Amino acid sequence: MALVRVHNFSVSLDGFGAGAGQTLDTPFGHAGMRLMTWAAATRTFRAMGMPGEGDGSFGVDEAFAGNWGPGIGAEIMGRNKFGPQRGAWENEEWKGWWGDDPVFHTPVVVLTHHPRPVLEMDGGTTFHFVDADPATVLEQARALAGDLDVRIGGGVSTVRQFLEADLIDHMHIALVPIVLGRGERLWDGLEGLEQRFDIEATPSPSGVTHLIFTRRPRS
Amino acid sequence: MALVRVHNFSVSLDGFGAGAGQTLDTPFGHAGMRLMTWAAATRTFRAMGMPGEGDGSFGVDEAFAGNWGPGIGAEIMGRNKFGPQRGAWENEEWKGWWGDDPVFHTPVVVLTHHPRPVLEMDGGTTFHFVDADPATVLEQARALAGDLDVRIGGGVSTVRQFLEADLIDHMHIALVPIVLGRGERLWDGLEGLEQRFDIEATPSPSGVTHLIFTRRPRS
Repeated sequence: MALVRVHNFSVSLDGFGAGAGQTLDTPFGHAGMRLMTWAAATRTFRAMGMPGEGDGSFGVDEAFAGNWGPGIGAEIMGRNKFGPQRGAWENEEWKGWWGDDPVFHTPVVVLTHHPRPVLEMDGGTTFHFVDADPATVLEQARALAGDLDVRIGGGVSTVRQFLEADLIDHMHIALVPIVLGRGERLWDGLEGLEQRFDIEATPSPSGVTHLIFTRRPRS
Repeated sequence: MALVRVHNFSVSLDGFGAGAGQTLDTPFGHAGMRLMTWAAATRTFRAMGMPGEGDGSFGVDEAFAGNWGPGIGAEIMGRNKFGPQRGAWENEEWKGWWGDDPVFHTPVVVLTHHPRPVLEMDGGTTFHFVDADPATVLEQARALAGDLDVRIGGGVSTVRQFLEADLIDHMHIALVPIVLGRGERLWDGLEGLEQRFDIEATPSPSGVTHLIFTRRPRS
């Protein structure tokens, strides 16, 4: 069976996956780009348009970052990753942070209580707006992904919901050695999570520690 | 000048340094021994009386654990590390968790609002009960330590207070890949801590990641 995967999800020492106060100009809130500095230096993220000098690294950060795309047939993302608006769509002009040709190149299911027609973008990305529980949404994403895997793309509450529902097989967390102090906590409500996963740690010269969670066989 | 050091301080993925509900039987609350499993397997902790098979490891966990003692002339600990009682001393029978010959073999300053005479134990450990702010307590501990370093021994709120007051030069955190869900958080109130420290990460086959914080030169 195809897997459900999380990649390149950065968390601070105090467990925050995003800062406080997301706006159009600050998608990570007061955290700014601090959670993503390690990623912005990799070849994979440079190729996705992250600004920086040169073409990006091939070090251990890239080794993990580059696993983001291959084998993925669809992504599930939360409304807050899609954009800074909350509540009913004021208009349907907003088409995500990623321009006319988004980086996904697959179907993307956006979780929202506010329905909206399918949005077809250039390059194979389609945004599907769905209001349902994680298991139902995953069923729809699996259908869109064909035989390929489904990526849970974030934000924080989306990853947390899918962990709570025990729907994640593989999770790559980049532990960033900063103390954010406020924002959205990833680990809340997940007491005992380690009982379901094998966890491997690999440090990087960039300072982050890559934590790989592999779901133990379900008995 | 002698340094102020923290060693072998375990923290969960969600930032808890102790579980909820400390009692006489459960000094780490609902966390049980899960935060200390890595340490209990080392030679240093076996020599301190931690139960287990054999003499303990000489691996990377021991390499860090063994730095606990050498060069230390005094420890500062919180009342909650000293014992499970709260408020005024019901009696002075309680002499810590560590028996007649405690593992410290140095003066130990216990932070408490409730004064009590100096307690002289076997093997060179003396407990001094002090009610003062971190800077004042540190001054007293430095005097007791002579030319040697002072260890901040925990618990969680004691380490946090000394970090808040920017009195710590070296800190060894063992990040344990468990999600405790509740207890005492180490990182609360320490937003931006990383700006004062260089931080190095080393993973261990035991699953923990050792984080070494070194205070940057104060300008």
